[in-house]
Amino acid sequence: MSHVTDTVPAPLFEMPLSVRWRDLDAFNHVNNSNFLTYLEETRIRWFESLGEEWVTETTAPLLAAVQINYRMPIPYPAEPLVQLYCERLGNTSVTIGHRIVSRDGATLYADGHVVMVWVERASGRPTPLPDAVRRAAGSAEPSSTP
Amino acid sequence: MSHVTDTVPAPLFEMPLSVRWRDLDAFNHVNNSNFLTYLEETRIRWFESLGEEWVTETTAPLLAAVQINYRMPIPYPAEPLVQLYCERLGNTSVTIGHRIVSRDGATLYADGHVVMVWVERASGRPTPLPDAVRRAAGSAEPSSTP
Amino acid sequence: MSHVTDTVPAPLFEMPLSVRWRDLDAFNHVNNSNFLTYLEETRIRWFESLGEEWVTETTAPLLAAVQINYRMPIPYPAEPLVQLYCERLGNTSVTIGHRIVSRDGATLYADGHVVMVWVERASGRPTPLPDAVRRAAGSAEPSSTP
Amino acid sequence: MSHVTDTVPAPLFEMPLSVRWRDLDAFNHVNNSNFLTYLEETRIRWFESLGEEWVTETTAPLLAAVQINYRMPIPYPAEPLVQLYCERLGNTSVTIGHRIVSRDGATLYADGHVVMVWVERASGRPTPLPDAVRRAAGSAEPSSTP
Repeated sequence: MSHVTDTVPAPLFEMPLSVRWRDLDAFNHVNNSNFLTYLEETRIRWFESLGEEWVTETTAPLLAAVQINYRMPIPYPAEPLVQLYCERLGNTSVTIGHRIVSRDGATLYADGHVVMVWVERASGRPTPLPDAVRRAAGSAEPSSTP
Repeated sequence: MSHVTDTVPAPLFEMPLSVRWRDLDAFNHVNNSNFLTYLEETRIRWFESLGEEWVTETTAPLLAAVQINYRMPIPYPAEPLVQLYCERLGNTSVTIGHRIVSRDGATLYADGHVVMVWVERASGRPTPLPDAVRRAAGSAEPSSTP
Repeated sequence: MSHVTDTVPAPLFEMPLSVRWRDLDAFNHVNNSNFLTYLEETRIRWFESLGEEWVTETTAPLLAAVQINYRMPIPYPAEPLVQLYCERLGNTSVTIGHRIVSRDGATLYADGHVVMVWVERASGRPTPLPDAVRRAAGSAEPSSTP
Repeated sequence: MSHVTDTVPAPLFEMPLSVRWRDLDAFNHVNNSNFLTYLEETRIRWFESLGEEWVTETTAPLLAAVQINYRMPIPYPAEPLVQLYCERLGNTSVTIGHRIVSRDGATLYADGHVVMVWVERASGRPTPLPDAVRRAAGSAEPSSTP
Protein backbone atom coordinates (compact mmCIF):
# COMPACT_ATOMS: atom_id res chain seq x y z
CA MET A 1 0.00 0.00 0.00
CA SER A 2 1.42 3.34 -1.02
CA HIS A 3 1.01 5.93 1.70
CA VAL A 4 0.58 9.55 0.90
CA THR A 5 3.32 11.61 2.46
CA ASP A 6 2.77 14.86 4.26
CA THR A 7 5.15 16.82 2.09
CA VAL A 8 2.76 17.27 -0.82
CA PRO A 9 1.76 20.93 -1.31
CA ALA A 10 -1.88 22.02 -1.39
CA PRO A 11 -3.44 21.13 -4.73
CA LEU A 12 -4.41 23.73 -7.29
CA PHE A 13 -7.76 21.95 -7.52
CA GLU A 14 -9.23 18.68 -6.36
CA MET A 15 -12.51 16.84 -6.69
CA PRO A 16 -13.98 13.42 -6.01
CA LEU A 17 -14.88 11.40 -9.06
CA SER A 18 -17.28 8.50 -9.17
CA VAL A 19 -15.84 5.33 -10.71
CA ARG A 20 -18.27 3.64 -13.09
CA TRP A 21 -18.55 -0.11 -13.49
CA ARG A 22 -17.89 0.39 -17.19
CA ASP A 23 -14.46 1.82 -16.27
CA LEU A 24 -13.47 -1.72 -15.29
CA ASP A 25 -11.94 -3.93 -17.95
CA ALA A 26 -11.82 -7.71 -18.29
CA PHE A 27 -9.21 -7.82 -15.49
CA ASN A 28 -11.82 -6.28 -13.16
CA HIS A 29 -9.65 -3.17 -12.64
CA VAL A 30 -10.24 0.40 -13.73
CA ASN A 31 -8.69 0.37 -17.20
CA ASN A 32 -5.48 2.34 -17.69
CA SER A 33 -7.10 4.64 -20.26
CA ASN A 34 -9.74 5.80 -17.77
CA PHE A 35 -7.10 7.40 -15.59
CA LEU A 36 -6.64 9.87 -18.45
CA THR A 37 -10.39 10.48 -18.50
CA TYR A 38 -10.38 11.12 -14.75
CA LEU A 39 -7.57 13.65 -15.18
CA GLU A 40 -9.31 15.29 -18.14
CA GLU A 41 -12.59 15.59 -16.23
CA THR A 42 -10.84 17.21 -13.29
CA ARG A 43 -8.91 19.64 -15.49
CA ILE A 44 -12.09 20.73 -17.25
CA ARG A 45 -13.94 21.20 -13.97
CA TRP A 46 -11.00 23.27 -12.79
CA PHE A 47 -11.15 25.39 -15.96
CA GLU A 48 -14.92 25.77 -15.52
CA SER A 49 -14.37 26.87 -11.91
CA LEU A 50 -12.25 29.82 -13.02
CA GLY A 51 -15.23 31.80 -14.22
CA GLU A 52 -13.75 32.72 -17.59
CA GLU A 53 -13.79 31.07 -20.99
CA TRP A 54 -11.11 28.41 -21.33
CA VAL A 55 -12.07 27.37 -24.83
CA THR A 56 -13.21 29.83 -27.46
CA GLU A 57 -14.17 29.85 -31.11
CA THR A 58 -10.51 30.32 -31.97
CA THR A 59 -8.44 28.76 -29.16
CA ALA A 60 -8.49 25.50 -27.22
CA PRO A 61 -6.24 23.50 -24.90
CA LEU A 62 -4.47 20.41 -26.20
CA LEU A 63 -2.71 17.67 -24.31
CA ALA A 64 0.92 17.68 -25.47
CA ALA A 65 2.27 14.93 -23.24
CA VAL A 66 1.30 12.72 -20.34
CA GLN A 67 3.17 10.67 -17.78
CA ILE A 68 1.32 8.39 -15.36
CA ASN A 69 2.61 5.99 -12.72
CA TYR A 70 -0.04 3.38 -11.94
CA ARG A 71 0.59 2.56 -8.26
CA MET A 72 -2.49 0.68 -7.06
CA PRO A 73 -5.62 -0.63 -8.82
CA ILE A 74 -8.67 1.56 -8.28
CA PRO A 75 -11.55 -0.52 -6.86
CA TYR A 76 -15.26 -0.34 -7.73
CA PRO A 77 -17.34 1.22 -6.36
CA ALA A 78 -15.14 4.11 -5.25
CA GLU A 79 -14.99 7.89 -5.28
CA PRO A 80 -11.27 8.69 -5.50
CA LEU A 81 -9.98 12.23 -5.18
CA VAL A 82 -8.20 13.67 -8.19
CA GLN A 83 -5.72 16.40 -7.30
CA LEU A 84 -4.02 18.82 -9.66
CA TYR A 85 -0.81 20.76 -9.01
CA CYS A 86 1.04 23.37 -11.00
CA GLU A 87 4.48 22.03 -11.75
CA ARG A 88 5.58 24.56 -14.34
CA LEU A 89 3.91 27.62 -15.80
CA GLY A 90 5.02 28.67 -19.28
CA ASN A 91 3.82 31.25 -21.75
CA THR A 92 1.70 28.96 -23.90
CA SER A 93 1.79 25.81 -21.79
CA VAL A 94 1.36 24.60 -18.25
CA THR A 95 2.62 21.38 -16.68
CA ILE A 96 -0.01 20.00 -14.33
CA GLY A 97 1.04 17.41 -11.78
CA HIS A 98 -1.67 14.99 -10.73
CA ARG A 99 -2.40 12.52 -7.97
CA ILE A 100 -5.34 10.14 -7.72
CA VAL A 101 -5.86 9.10 -4.09
CA SER A 102 -8.50 7.33 -2.01
CA ARG A 103 -11.05 9.51 -0.27
CA ASP A 104 -9.32 9.03 3.08
CA GLY A 105 -6.02 10.00 1.49
CA ALA A 106 -4.38 6.78 2.64
CA THR A 107 -3.86 5.21 -0.77
CA LEU A 108 -2.11 6.69 -3.77
CA TYR A 109 -3.55 5.11 -6.92
CA ALA A 110 -1.57 7.10 -9.48
CA ASP A 111 0.59 10.14 -9.94
CA GLY A 112 2.43 11.91 -12.73
CA HIS A 113 1.90 15.01 -14.84
CA VAL A 114 0.49 16.28 -18.10
CA VAL A 115 1.63 19.13 -20.34
CA MET A 116 -1.23 21.28 -21.64
CA VAL A 117 -0.70 23.71 -24.52
CA TRP A 118 -3.17 26.31 -25.73
CA VAL A 119 -3.41 26.48 -29.51
CA GLU A 120 -5.17 28.40 -32.24
CA ARG A 121 -7.78 25.94 -33.43
CA ALA A 122 -7.34 26.73 -37.12
CA SER A 123 -3.56 26.64 -37.35
CA GLY A 124 -2.71 24.41 -34.41
CA ARG A 125 -0.08 26.98 -33.38
CA PRO A 126 0.57 27.71 -29.68
CA THR A 127 -1.15 30.76 -28.26
CA PRO A 128 -0.80 32.36 -24.81
CA LEU A 129 -2.61 30.71 -21.91
CA PRO A 130 -5.98 32.23 -20.97
CA ASP A 131 -5.47 34.84 -18.24
CA ALA A 132 -7.66 32.97 -15.77
CA VAL A 133 -5.63 29.78 -16.19
CA ARG A 134 -2.34 31.67 -15.84
CA ARG A 135 -3.50 33.46 -12.70
CA ALA A 136 -4.87 30.33 -11.05
CA ALA A 137 -1.88 28.19 -11.93
CA GLY A 138 0.57 30.94 -11.03
CA SER A 139 -0.85 31.37 -7.56
CA ALA A 140 -0.28 27.69 -6.88
CA GLU A 141 3.10 27.37 -8.54
CA PRO A 142 5.88 26.00 -6.38
CA SER A 143 7.56 29.03 -4.89
CA SER A 144 10.56 30.04 -6.92
CA THR A 145 11.92 32.55 -4.44
CA PRO A 146 15.61 33.10 -3.89
CA MET B 1 4.03 17.96 -39.84
CA SER B 2 6.33 15.59 -38.00
CA HIS B 3 8.24 13.37 -40.40
CA VAL B 4 9.31 9.91 -39.45
CA THR B 5 13.05 9.55 -39.60
CA ASP B 6 14.86 6.62 -41.14
CA THR B 7 16.80 5.80 -38.01
CA VAL B 8 13.98 4.00 -36.21
CA PRO B 9 14.71 0.26 -35.78
CA ALA B 10 12.29 -2.39 -37.01
CA PRO B 11 9.33 -2.68 -34.66
CA LEU B 12 8.77 -5.70 -32.44
CA PHE B 13 5.21 -5.71 -33.73
CA GLU B 14 2.98 -3.40 -35.69
CA MET B 15 -0.60 -3.36 -36.86
CA PRO B 16 -3.10 -0.98 -38.44
CA LEU B 17 -5.95 0.08 -36.21
CA SER B 18 -9.25 1.48 -37.36
CA VAL B 19 -10.20 4.78 -35.70
CA ARG B 20 -13.86 4.88 -34.66
CA TRP B 21 -15.97 8.01 -34.80
CA ARG B 22 -16.68 7.48 -31.11
CA ASP B 23 -12.93 7.92 -30.45
CA LEU B 24 -13.43 11.60 -31.31
CA ASP B 25 -14.30 13.98 -28.51
CA ALA B 26 -16.10 17.32 -28.54
CA PHE B 27 -12.98 18.93 -30.08
CA ASN B 28 -13.41 16.60 -33.07
CA HIS B 29 -10.04 14.94 -32.37
CA VAL B 30 -9.26 11.41 -31.25
CA ASN B 31 -9.41 11.81 -27.47
CA ASN B 32 -6.14 11.53 -25.57
CA SER B 33 -7.37 8.47 -23.62
CA ASN B 34 -7.93 6.48 -26.81
CA PHE B 35 -4.24 6.55 -27.59
CA LEU B 36 -3.85 4.28 -24.55
CA THR B 37 -6.56 2.00 -25.92
CA TYR B 38 -4.77 1.82 -29.27
CA LEU B 39 -1.53 0.88 -27.51
CA GLU B 40 -3.30 -1.68 -25.33
CA GLU B 41 -5.00 -3.28 -28.33
CA THR B 42 -1.70 -3.58 -30.17
CA ARG B 43 0.10 -5.05 -27.15
CA ILE B 44 -2.61 -7.67 -26.68
CA ARG B 45 -2.55 -8.60 -30.37
CA TRP B 46 1.20 -8.92 -30.06
CA PHE B 47 0.83 -11.18 -27.00
CA GLU B 48 -1.80 -13.22 -28.86
CA SER B 49 0.55 -13.56 -31.82
CA LEU B 50 3.18 -15.29 -29.67
CA GLY B 51 1.27 -18.55 -29.56
CA GLU B 52 1.56 -18.99 -25.78
CA GLU B 53 -0.61 -17.91 -22.87
CA TRP B 54 0.14 -14.36 -21.78
CA VAL B 55 -2.48 -14.26 -19.06
CA THR B 56 -3.27 -17.24 -16.86
CA GLU B 57 -5.47 -18.10 -13.90
CA THR B 58 -2.70 -16.86 -11.62
CA THR B 59 -0.68 -14.24 -13.54
CA ALA B 60 -1.47 -11.20 -15.66
CA PRO B 61 0.30 -8.15 -17.10
CA LEU B 62 -0.27 -4.73 -15.55
CA LEU B 63 0.60 -1.33 -16.85
CA ALA B 64 3.01 0.24 -14.36
CA ALA B 65 3.68 3.52 -16.16
CA VAL B 66 3.03 5.31 -19.41
CA GLN B 67 4.55 8.24 -21.21
CA ILE B 68 2.98 9.64 -24.38
CA ASN B 69 3.91 12.61 -26.54
CA TYR B 70 0.92 13.76 -28.56
CA ARG B 71 2.47 15.15 -31.76
CA MET B 72 -0.38 15.48 -34.26
CA PRO B 73 -4.15 14.98 -34.02
CA ILE B 74 -5.34 11.69 -35.50
CA PRO B 75 -8.03 12.30 -38.14
CA TYR B 76 -11.21 10.34 -38.77
CA PRO B 77 -11.60 8.13 -40.68
CA ALA B 78 -8.06 6.73 -40.54
CA GLU B 79 -6.20 3.49 -40.05
CA PRO B 80 -2.97 4.49 -38.33
CA LEU B 81 -0.17 2.01 -37.74
CA VAL B 82 0.73 1.28 -34.14
CA GLN B 83 4.33 0.14 -33.70
CA LEU B 84 5.87 -1.45 -30.63
CA TYR B 85 9.57 -1.56 -29.76
CA CYS B 86 11.47 -3.20 -26.93
CA GLU B 87 13.28 -0.47 -25.02
CA ARG B 88 14.30 -2.48 -21.96
CA LEU B 89 13.85 -6.10 -20.97
CA GLY B 90 13.83 -6.85 -17.25
CA ASN B 91 13.11 -9.95 -15.21
CA THR B 92 9.51 -9.14 -14.32
CA SER B 93 8.95 -6.12 -16.54
CA VAL B 94 9.45 -4.87 -20.07
CA THR B 95 9.55 -1.30 -21.34
CA ILE B 96 7.76 -1.08 -24.67
CA GLY B 97 8.39 1.93 -26.85
CA HIS B 98 5.52 2.91 -29.11
CA ARG B 99 4.88 5.03 -32.18
CA ILE B 100 1.55 5.77 -33.81
CA VAL B 101 2.06 6.81 -37.43
CA SER B 102 -0.04 7.34 -40.53
CA ARG B 103 -0.36 4.41 -42.93
CA ASP B 104 2.11 5.99 -45.36
CA GLY B 105 4.56 6.50 -42.52
CA ALA B 106 4.79 10.23 -43.25
CA THR B 107 3.13 11.52 -40.07
CA LEU B 108 4.03 10.72 -36.50
CA TYR B 109 0.91 11.09 -34.35
CA ALA B 110 2.40 10.00 -31.03
CA ASP B 111 5.36 8.30 -29.44
CA GLY B 112 6.53 7.32 -25.98
CA HIS B 113 6.73 4.15 -23.95
CA VAL B 114 4.93 2.03 -21.40
CA VAL B 115 6.27 -0.17 -18.61
CA MET B 116 4.52 -3.53 -18.32
CA VAL B 117 4.92 -5.71 -15.26
CA TRP B 118 3.71 -9.28 -14.85
CA VAL B 119 2.11 -9.93 -11.47
CA GLU B 120 0.53 -12.71 -9.48
CA ARG B 121 -3.17 -11.88 -9.68
CA ALA B 122 -3.91 -12.77 -6.05
CA SER B 123 -1.04 -10.93 -4.35
CA GLY B 124 -0.24 -8.29 -6.94
CA ARG B 125 3.44 -9.21 -6.58
CA PRO B 126 5.75 -9.17 -9.61
CA THR B 127 6.38 -12.51 -11.28
CA PRO B 128 8.77 -13.41 -14.13
CA LEU B 129 7.70 -12.48 -17.66
CA PRO B 130 6.12 -15.29 -19.70
CA ASP B 131 8.84 -17.06 -21.70
CA ALA B 132 7.21 -16.20 -25.02
CA VAL B 133 7.16 -12.49 -24.16
CA ARG B 134 10.78 -12.58 -23.00
CA ARG B 135 11.93 -14.36 -26.13
CA ALA B 136 10.04 -12.08 -28.49
CA ALA B 137 11.05 -8.89 -26.72
CA GLY B 138 14.65 -10.08 -26.27
CA SER B 139 15.12 -10.74 -29.95
CA ALA B 140 14.14 -7.16 -30.71
CA GLU B 141 15.99 -5.47 -27.86
CA PRO B 142 18.38 -2.76 -28.94
CA SER B 143 21.90 -4.19 -28.71
CA SER B 144 23.57 -2.37 -25.88
CA THR B 145 27.12 -3.70 -26.18
CA PRO B 146 29.81 -2.68 -28.61
CA MET C 1 -38.86 20.63 -23.76
CA SER C 2 -40.39 17.38 -22.58
CA HIS C 3 -42.10 17.79 -19.25
CA VAL C 4 -42.31 15.00 -16.74
CA THR C 5 -45.89 14.16 -15.94
CA ASP C 6 -47.21 13.53 -12.46
CA THR C 7 -48.55 10.09 -13.29
CA VAL C 8 -45.23 8.27 -13.10
CA PRO C 9 -45.09 5.81 -10.15
CA ALA C 10 -42.33 5.99 -7.56
CA PRO C 11 -39.10 4.53 -8.94
CA LEU C 12 -37.64 1.26 -7.74
CA PHE C 13 -34.33 3.08 -7.43
CA GLU C 14 -32.89 6.39 -8.54
CA MET C 15 -29.56 8.15 -8.35
CA PRO C 16 -27.84 11.21 -9.76
CA LEU C 17 -25.03 10.52 -12.18
CA SER C 18 -22.25 12.89 -13.10
CA VAL C 19 -21.84 13.43 -16.85
CA ARG C 20 -18.20 13.40 -17.93
CA TRP C 21 -16.82 15.58 -20.69
CA ARG C 22 -15.60 12.39 -22.37
CA ASP C 23 -19.25 11.29 -22.66
CA LEU C 24 -19.66 14.01 -25.30
CA ASP C 25 -18.99 13.10 -28.90
CA ALA C 26 -17.97 15.23 -31.86
CA PHE C 27 -21.51 16.68 -31.99
CA ASN C 28 -20.95 18.05 -28.46
CA HIS C 29 -23.78 15.90 -27.07
CA VAL C 30 -23.66 12.98 -24.68
CA ASN C 31 -23.16 10.08 -27.08
CA ASN C 32 -26.05 7.66 -27.51
CA SER C 33 -23.98 4.72 -26.20
CA ASN C 34 -23.38 6.46 -22.87
CA PHE C 35 -27.07 6.35 -22.05
CA LEU C 36 -26.62 2.58 -21.80
CA THR C 37 -23.66 3.10 -19.47
CA TYR C 38 -25.74 5.41 -17.27
CA LEU C 39 -28.49 2.76 -17.08
CA GLU C 40 -25.95 0.03 -16.36
CA GLU C 41 -24.30 2.04 -13.59
CA THR C 42 -27.66 2.70 -11.96
CA ARG C 43 -28.75 -0.94 -12.18
CA ILE C 44 -25.50 -2.11 -10.59
CA ARG C 45 -25.78 0.46 -7.79
CA TRP C 46 -29.33 -0.78 -7.24
CA PHE C 47 -28.12 -4.40 -7.10
CA GLU C 48 -25.34 -3.35 -4.69
CA SER C 49 -27.91 -1.57 -2.50
CA LEU C 50 -29.84 -4.82 -1.96
CA GLY C 51 -27.28 -6.20 0.46
CA GLU C 52 -27.02 -9.60 -1.19
CA GLU C 53 -24.81 -11.00 -3.94
CA TRP C 54 -26.16 -10.21 -7.39
CA VAL C 55 -23.31 -11.85 -9.27
CA THR C 56 -21.66 -15.05 -8.10
CA GLU C 57 -18.99 -17.48 -9.26
CA THR C 58 -21.69 -19.32 -11.21
CA THR C 59 -24.44 -16.82 -12.10
CA ALA C 60 -24.58 -13.32 -13.55
CA PRO C 61 -27.11 -10.93 -15.09
CA LEU C 62 -27.10 -10.32 -18.84
CA LEU C 63 -28.82 -7.66 -20.86
CA ALA C 64 -31.21 -9.44 -23.24
CA ALA C 65 -32.79 -6.40 -24.90
CA VAL C 66 -32.89 -2.63 -24.68
CA GLN C 67 -35.21 0.06 -25.93
CA ILE C 68 -34.35 3.75 -25.54
CA ASN C 69 -36.16 6.87 -26.72
CA TYR C 70 -33.72 9.78 -26.90
CA ARG C 71 -35.90 12.81 -26.13
CA MET C 72 -33.51 15.67 -25.36
CA PRO C 73 -29.71 16.02 -25.54
CA ILE C 74 -28.03 15.81 -22.12
CA PRO C 75 -25.85 18.87 -21.52
CA TYR C 76 -22.41 19.07 -19.89
CA PRO C 77 -21.80 19.59 -17.08
CA ALA C 78 -24.90 17.99 -15.58
CA GLU C 79 -25.96 15.52 -12.94
CA PRO C 80 -29.12 13.92 -14.34
CA LEU C 81 -31.24 11.55 -12.28
CA VAL C 82 -31.53 7.99 -13.52
CA GLN C 83 -34.73 6.27 -12.41
CA LEU C 84 -35.53 2.56 -12.60
CA TYR C 85 -39.00 0.99 -12.53
CA CYS C 86 -40.15 -2.60 -12.50
CA GLU C 87 -42.26 -3.17 -15.61
CA ARG C 88 -42.48 -6.95 -15.50
CA LEU C 89 -41.13 -9.55 -13.10
CA GLY C 90 -40.54 -13.02 -14.51
CA ASN C 91 -38.93 -16.14 -13.17
CA THR C 92 -35.51 -15.70 -14.72
CA SER C 93 -35.88 -12.18 -16.08
CA VAL C 94 -37.02 -8.73 -15.11
CA THR C 95 -38.04 -5.85 -17.38
CA ILE C 96 -36.74 -2.58 -15.95
CA GLY C 97 -38.25 0.66 -17.17
CA HIS C 98 -35.94 3.65 -17.08
CA ARG C 99 -36.12 7.41 -17.23
CA ILE C 100 -33.24 9.86 -17.34
CA VAL C 101 -34.39 13.29 -16.16
CA SER C 102 -32.82 16.59 -15.15
CA ARG C 103 -32.16 17.13 -11.44
CA ASP C 104 -35.17 19.43 -11.13
CA GLY C 105 -37.34 16.82 -12.83
CA ALA C 106 -38.45 19.31 -15.48
CA THR C 107 -36.74 17.70 -18.49
CA LEU C 108 -37.04 14.13 -19.67
CA TYR C 109 -33.83 13.21 -21.54
CA ALA C 110 -34.66 9.57 -22.28
CA ASP C 111 -36.99 6.73 -21.38
CA GLY C 112 -37.52 3.11 -22.33
CA HIS C 113 -36.77 -0.26 -20.78
CA VAL C 114 -34.28 -3.08 -20.63
CA VAL C 115 -34.79 -6.81 -20.18
CA MET C 116 -32.33 -8.42 -17.75
CA VAL C 117 -31.91 -12.18 -17.58
CA TRP C 118 -29.92 -14.10 -15.00
CA VAL C 119 -27.82 -16.89 -16.50
CA GLU C 120 -25.45 -19.65 -15.46
CA ARG C 121 -22.08 -18.27 -16.46
CA ALA C 122 -20.76 -21.58 -17.81
CA SER C 123 -23.73 -22.65 -19.91
CA GLY C 124 -25.38 -19.31 -20.61
CA ARG C 125 -28.71 -20.88 -19.61
CA PRO C 126 -31.31 -18.83 -17.73
CA THR C 127 -31.40 -19.29 -13.96
CA PRO C 128 -33.88 -17.91 -11.38
CA LEU C 129 -33.43 -14.28 -10.34
CA PRO C 130 -31.53 -13.72 -7.08
CA ASP C 131 -34.01 -13.55 -4.18
CA ALA C 132 -33.03 -10.01 -3.27
CA VAL C 133 -33.65 -8.79 -6.82
CA ARG C 134 -36.99 -10.58 -6.97
CA ARG C 135 -38.10 -9.16 -3.63
CA ALA C 136 -37.06 -5.62 -4.45
CA ALA C 137 -38.52 -5.64 -7.95
CA GLY C 138 -41.69 -7.39 -6.81
CA SER C 139 -42.43 -4.80 -4.17
CA ALA C 140 -42.32 -2.12 -6.86
CA GLU C 141 -44.14 -3.98 -9.60
CA PRO C 142 -47.20 -2.20 -10.97
CA SER C 143 -50.21 -4.04 -9.57
CA SER C 144 -51.93 -5.57 -12.54
CA THR C 145 -54.83 -7.39 -10.95
CA PRO C 146 -57.90 -5.99 -9.18
CA MET D 1 -26.35 -20.81 -31.31
CA SER D 2 -28.64 -18.54 -33.29
CA HIS D 3 -28.54 -19.37 -36.97
CA VAL D 4 -28.99 -16.75 -39.61
CA THR D 5 -31.91 -17.59 -41.86
CA ASP D 6 -31.87 -17.27 -45.61
CA THR D 7 -34.86 -14.97 -45.74
CA VAL D 8 -33.00 -11.80 -44.79
CA PRO D 9 -32.87 -9.29 -47.68
CA ALA D 10 -29.58 -7.89 -48.95
CA PRO D 11 -28.27 -5.23 -46.56
CA LEU D 12 -28.16 -1.55 -47.43
CA PHE D 13 -24.57 -1.58 -46.22
CA GLU D 14 -22.32 -3.92 -44.31
CA MET D 15 -18.79 -3.87 -42.98
CA PRO D 16 -16.56 -5.90 -40.70
CA LEU D 17 -15.62 -4.23 -37.45
CA SER D 18 -12.67 -5.12 -35.27
CA VAL D 19 -13.57 -5.78 -31.63
CA ARG D 20 -11.12 -4.16 -29.22
CA TRP D 21 -10.10 -5.72 -25.92
CA ARG D 22 -11.30 -2.53 -24.24
CA ASP D 23 -14.81 -3.28 -25.53
CA LEU D 24 -14.91 -6.14 -23.01
CA ASP D 25 -16.23 -5.41 -19.54
CA ALA D 26 -15.59 -7.11 -16.21
CA PHE D 27 -17.76 -10.05 -17.34
CA ASN D 28 -15.28 -10.61 -20.21
CA HIS D 29 -17.98 -9.91 -22.81
CA VAL D 30 -18.32 -7.04 -25.24
CA ASN D 31 -20.23 -4.52 -23.15
CA ASN D 32 -23.81 -3.78 -24.15
CA SER D 33 -23.02 -0.11 -24.83
CA ASN D 34 -20.41 -1.00 -27.45
CA PHE D 35 -23.08 -2.55 -29.66
CA LEU D 36 -24.37 1.00 -30.10
CA THR D 37 -20.87 2.16 -31.01
CA TYR D 38 -20.58 -0.62 -33.60
CA LEU D 39 -23.90 0.44 -35.13
CA GLU D 40 -22.90 4.10 -35.07
CA GLU D 41 -19.56 3.40 -36.74
CA THR D 42 -21.26 1.41 -39.48
CA ARG D 43 -23.91 4.07 -40.08
CA ILE D 44 -21.26 6.78 -40.39
CA ARG D 45 -19.17 4.70 -42.79
CA TRP D 46 -22.34 4.17 -44.81
CA PHE D 47 -23.01 7.92 -44.84
CA GLU D 48 -19.39 8.55 -45.83
CA SER D 49 -19.73 6.02 -48.66
CA LEU D 50 -22.55 8.02 -50.26
CA GLY D 51 -20.20 10.67 -51.58
CA GLU D 52 -22.24 13.62 -50.33
CA GLU D 53 -22.24 15.60 -47.11
CA TRP D 54 -24.29 13.91 -44.40
CA VAL D 55 -23.57 16.50 -41.74
CA THR D 56 -23.28 20.19 -42.49
CA GLU D 57 -22.78 23.45 -40.62
CA THR D 58 -26.54 23.60 -40.09
CA THR D 59 -27.89 20.02 -40.11
CA ALA D 60 -26.94 16.75 -38.47
CA PRO D 61 -28.43 13.31 -37.82
CA LEU D 62 -29.62 12.40 -34.33
CA LEU D 63 -30.53 9.06 -32.89
CA ALA D 64 -34.19 9.24 -31.84
CA ALA D 65 -34.66 5.68 -30.63
CA VAL D 66 -32.91 2.34 -30.50
CA GLN D 67 -33.99 -1.24 -29.98
CA ILE D 68 -31.43 -4.03 -29.63
CA ASN D 69 -31.85 -7.74 -28.94
CA TYR D 70 -28.64 -9.17 -27.52
CA ARG D 71 -28.64 -12.78 -28.77
CA MET D 72 -25.10 -14.08 -28.23
CA PRO D 73 -22.00 -12.64 -26.54
CA ILE D 74 -19.42 -11.31 -29.00
CA PRO D 75 -16.03 -12.93 -28.39
CA TYR D 76 -12.59 -11.33 -28.49
CA PRO D 77 -10.74 -11.20 -30.77
CA ALA D 78 -13.35 -11.10 -33.52
CA GLU D 79 -14.32 -9.15 -36.62
CA PRO D 80 -18.10 -9.35 -36.74
CA LEU D 81 -20.08 -8.06 -39.71
CA VAL D 82 -22.46 -5.21 -39.03
CA GLN D 83 -25.36 -5.07 -41.51
CA LEU D 84 -27.78 -2.22 -42.03
CA TYR D 85 -31.24 -2.45 -43.61
CA CYS D 86 -33.82 0.17 -44.47
CA GLU D 87 -36.97 -0.64 -42.54
CA ARG D 88 -38.87 2.58 -43.10
CA LEU D 89 -38.08 5.73 -45.03
CA GLY D 90 -39.78 8.93 -43.86
CA ASN D 91 -39.45 12.56 -44.79
CA THR D 92 -37.17 13.63 -41.96
CA SER D 93 -36.34 10.21 -40.49
CA VAL D 94 -35.24 6.74 -41.48
CA THR D 95 -35.60 3.50 -39.52
CA ILE D 96 -32.49 1.40 -39.97
CA GLY D 97 -32.65 -2.28 -39.11
CA HIS D 98 -29.37 -3.81 -37.99
CA ARG D 99 -27.82 -7.23 -37.53
CA ILE D 100 -24.43 -8.04 -36.05
CA VAL D 101 -23.28 -11.46 -37.22
CA SER D 102 -20.10 -13.52 -37.19
CA ARG D 103 -17.86 -13.30 -40.26
CA ASP D 104 -19.04 -16.70 -41.48
CA GLY D 105 -22.65 -15.59 -41.07
CA ALA D 106 -23.41 -18.56 -38.81
CA THR D 107 -24.00 -16.66 -35.58
CA LEU D 108 -26.37 -13.79 -34.98
CA TYR D 109 -25.01 -11.67 -32.11
CA ALA D 110 -27.64 -8.95 -32.12
CA ASP D 111 -30.46 -7.46 -34.14
CA GLY D 112 -32.95 -4.62 -33.87
CA HIS D 113 -33.32 -1.17 -35.34
CA VAL D 114 -32.62 2.51 -34.78
CA VAL D 115 -34.59 5.58 -35.78
CA MET D 116 -32.44 8.39 -37.18
CA VAL D 117 -33.78 11.91 -37.57
CA TRP D 118 -32.09 14.78 -39.34
CA VAL D 119 -32.33 18.06 -37.44
CA GLU D 120 -31.34 21.68 -37.74
CA ARG D 121 -28.42 21.96 -35.35
CA ALA D 122 -29.47 25.34 -33.95
CA SER D 123 -33.14 24.67 -33.30
CA GLY D 124 -33.16 20.90 -32.96
CA ARG D 125 -36.12 20.83 -35.36
CA PRO D 126 -36.48 17.99 -37.90
CA THR D 127 -35.29 18.76 -41.42
CA PRO D 128 -35.58 16.66 -44.61
CA LEU D 129 -33.12 13.78 -45.01
CA PRO D 130 -30.07 14.51 -47.18
CA ASP D 131 -30.80 13.49 -50.78
CA ALA D 132 -28.01 10.96 -50.84
CA VAL D 133 -29.33 9.22 -47.73
CA ARG D 134 -32.86 9.20 -49.11
CA ARG D 135 -31.76 7.78 -52.44
CA ALA D 136 -29.58 5.08 -50.90
CA ALA D 137 -32.13 4.07 -48.28
CA GLY D 138 -34.99 4.22 -50.77
CA SER D 139 -33.33 1.88 -53.20
CA ALA D 140 -33.00 -0.71 -50.43
CA GLU D 141 -36.39 -0.22 -48.86
CA PRO D 142 -38.44 -3.39 -48.65
CA SER D 143 -40.85 -3.23 -51.57
CA SER D 144 -44.30 -2.95 -50.14
CA THR D 145 -46.33 -3.16 -53.29
CA PRO D 146 -47.25 -6.27 -55.26
